[in-house]
Amino acid sequence: MSRIEVVSSVLAANEAKAEQNKARLHAAGAVAVNVLSAPGSGKTTLLQHTLTALTDLPAAVLVGDLQTSRDAERLAATGAPVVQINTGQGCHLTPDQVAEGLDRLDLEQIKLVFIENIGNMVCPAGVDLGEDYRVALLSVPEGDDKIAKYPTLFQAADLILLSKVDLLPVLPFNVAQVEADLALVNTRAPLLRRSTLTGEGMPEWLAWLRSRRRS
Amino acid sequence: MSRIEVVSSVLAANEAKAEQNKARLHAAGAVAVNVLSAPGSGKTTLLQHTLTALTDLPAAVLVGDLQTSRDAERLAATGAPVVQINTGQGCHLTPDQVAEGLDRLDLEQIKLVFIENIGNMVCPAGVDLGEDYRVALLSVPEGDDKIAKYPTLFQAADLILLSKVDLLPVLPFNVAQVEADLALVNTRAPLLRRSTLTGEGMPEWLAWLRSRRRS
Repeated sequence: MSRIEVVSSVLAANEAKAEQNKARLHAAGAVAVNVLSAPGSGKTTLLQHTLTALTDLPAAVLVGDLQTSRDAERLAATGAPVVQINTGQGCHLTPDQVAEGLDRLDLEQIKLVFIENIGNMVCPAGVDLGEDYRVALLSVPEGDDKIAKYPTLFQAADLILLSKVDLLPVLPFNVAQVEADLALVNTRAPLLRRSTLTGEGMPEWLAWLRSRRRS
Repeated sequence: MSRIEVVSSVLAANEAKAEQNKARLHAAGAVAVNVLSAPGSGKTTLLQHTLTALTDLPAAVLVGDLQTSRDAERLAATGAPVVQINTGQGCHLTPDQVAEGLDRLDLEQIKLVFIENIGNMVCPAGVDLGEDYRVALLSVPEGDDKIAKYPTLFQAADLILLSKVDLLPVLPFNVAQVEADLALVNTRAPLLRRSTLTGEGMPEWLAWLRSRRRS
């Protein structure tokens, strides 16, 4: 009995904190995008290029990692405000950590907050951080079976980025399989192909972000 | 207080169950290898090729996935005994699930049991399943920063396979960086380069497995 009580109270506290984050972002006129994927799908690289290209929309990043500040250093080189959150053993960001990250930003100056979650296809999917949108990345080298195998991650996404599509010619990967698996779990989120190397999909991604602007 | 009590009892139960699994495997003369990595690093592909090549060492696989039996189907095509374990929302295999998997195998006929864990660089690292050895995969497309960012996974590994090295010529990846990061967390585990496409590293991997044989 005590076990269930503890779990419920943690969940309820998380939900309340997520609601607080959301209210705070709305009040400041900022939109938050939670970016999720496996490790190495290209979240940080996507955000590096996005921050550089999105000069018309002031953006900041809260970046989660178990260890190191390598991602924050890469992102800060773009000139955008960046807060590194180290979770130690934690396999997802928590609403509390996001709240602490928001404390470090001047939200009045920011229209878009990216939350780069821990690289993990399981844990972050079930945790609301107070974001407005979720973007899930799937990279071609991970294989075309991942949507069927990790449906929860893709079910809750508002946009799915198929990344590293420049590797399609050299790796076995069936895009039609991915589309068929996605149709079973999420019919609302578009699947957008992108590549950092060729630039494919970048204009569509930036347009998607701009159209989410709150004011 | 109750929270700490509950966590401790779950951990203690897990450890006891892991010890039982280990004793059972030893009694049967079988060695267990826990295979860990991010999603899409090539665990299943590695095992497919390993089962096919390892005709002198009877092997079986317990394969963990949140959903689907796709991996089990791929592995069973080799003719080896395979048990699929679906964890639902669980981000790692548990010793109980492994025990249930072992129930489904004829251990007297088996010398090597591969446990293909859930694709995840965080959760499985802290959970002993009763295995004798841990093998961690890192694939080139994931990027050369992963050992520094997920040290726990690589710290506890007995062998590290750098997979998809056929992509080294076309992707930015600094092997020296990986070696330097690894030297900080684990000096005992060799780093072995491998590629399914070229076959590089396969003889060394099979030799490593054969030398682990219990009897």
